[in-house]
Amino acid sequence: MADNRPIGVFDSGLGGLTVVKELKRLLPNENIIYFGDTGRVPYGTRSNDIVKRYAREDEAFLLSQNVKMIIAACGTVSSVAYMTAKELPVPFIEVVTPAALAAANATKNNKIGVIGTSVTVGSRSHARAILKTLPDAVIVANACPLFVSLVEEGWISPEDPVTNEVAKRYLEPIVNADVDTLIMGCTHYPALRPILQKIMGDKVTLIDPGLATAMQVKDYLTKANALAESKTDDKYFVSDRANTFSKVAKILMGESIEDKVEQIDIFKYI
Amino acid sequence: MADNRPIGVFDSGLGGLTVVKELKRLLPNENIIYFGDTGRVPYGTRSNDIVKRYAREDEAFLLSQNVKMIIAACGTVSSVAYMTAKELPVPFIEVVTPAALAAANATKNNKIGVIGTSVTVGSRSHARAILKTLPDAVIVANACPLFVSLVEEGWISPEDPVTNEVAKRYLEPIVNADVDTLIMGCTHYPALRPILQKIMGDKVTLIDPGLATAMQVKDYLTKANALAESKTDDKYFVSDRANTFSKVAKILMGESIEDKVEQIDIFKYI
Repeated sequence: MADNRPIGVFDSGLGGLTVVKELKRLLPNENIIYFGDTGRVPYGTRSNDIVKRYAREDEAFLLSQNVKMIIAACGTVSSVAYMTAKELPVPFIEVVTPAALAAANATKNNKIGVIGTSVTVGSRSHARAILKTLPDAVIVANACPLFVSLVEEGWISPEDPVTNEVAKRYLEPIVNADVDTLIMGCTHYPALRPILQKIMGDKVTLIDPGLATAMQVKDYLTKANALAESKTDDKYFVSDRANTFSKVAKILMGESIEDKVEQIDIFKYI
Repeated sequence: MADNRPIGVFDSGLGGLTVVKELKRLLPNENIIYFGDTGRVPYGTRSNDIVKRYAREDEAFLLSQNVKMIIAACGTVSSVAYMTAKELPVPFIEVVTPAALAAANATKNNKIGVIGTSVTVGSRSHARAILKTLPDAVIVANACPLFVSLVEEGWISPEDPVTNEVAKRYLEPIVNADVDTLIMGCTHYPALRPILQKIMGDKVTLIDPGLATAMQVKDYLTKANALAESKTDDKYFVSDRANTFSKVAKILMGESIEDKVEQIDIFKYI
């Protein structure tokens, strides 16, 4: 039996588009409804209570769109608002657990680095998930509050001196810890992959939460016999459409979604 | 006649505290009620419509506190939401006009630089205000989207290589234009004054919107015979109290306001 209802994906802003990109690659028949809370981005520097509240509103909007599943394509929401999942009438997949499992599989020396927003790193969510599988793992985490702004500014060239200097500063404790695997624990960070790889060195495996999550979604839908068979257009919704929207969306998705985006009033959903 | 009702001050986040600092210095008898919309900061990268909406909600909260005047201590709100002033039952003072007039007074070569958020610079609000007084002024403006994040990260040391490099990049067109006056058009920016002064050179006058605005407030209240005569405690309200709150507030105010802060639900005010 097929389930042609769309998959609902949400993020604090546009970072979740790196997850959508991988979903579309691995599951080309699936219909996607994306919501980016661009009117309230970023979540990663806010308190846990506010993040939970915003997540519930974002989920309420997706449920109004008759989705068959909700994906929290946001490291921050995944880290602190995963408990909102219990209240949902549809399956919920977040980006922390798949990334943690991928890292636990990839590491050879059991030393894993984690980078993310202040909220994500403060929650120790990746560490908890890794230690369940790999109890003797050594996890070194550091918050990188400026990375989202740097990506949204478009300063992602591997030669950019500012972004290189910022990345060196944030990654220093992780490089010093001799990790062989690094989780990019925020869905904006894959846009910085070339810089991160250069600083970490070629031997370190970088884990993209988008890819890891898309693999878990494919596995779940296959087992649940709920894959879609007919594809319609994907839909993208945002709570604000600022000037830089098109530029940032293209950086993260690798393609323009300009014509497919609609602005909604997120304050109506609760 | 005295008017002991408080002055209401609001900002997208904590930047407006640089205005409060100057208000307290110039008007030590006044009672201040501050609201920082930390649950939705920053405003400077959002669309004009969203900024106007948030400003109206912020103003509604201050009006519920029986204020005698409202100050928009935020370059972004001042640039695009000044028209909300017409709807208000109390006088409204914003930070763009006082800073523009101070710059027009300070310049000798009629070349003025303006830095601010994307919204502020895109609105050309400072340029319009300067040209009314100084029609042959040459105004060179540049948006500095990363400055707010750098201040909130606390990377404000004059020796910080990242902040220096970012500031050099943003200020380059302004330095090249040979201005003798620079408006710090966002209330976060005075925290970067030493770095900005170093890059611009000692001969360039930096205009602090907080000081210029506090002077206008003092002038207005004196003329309206509405100065306060008895001082009670100032009150600070925020819509979210994240981990970095205390650190950032201290950077901007120069003193701790930790014990005086209360969190409110801004979504109730409209």
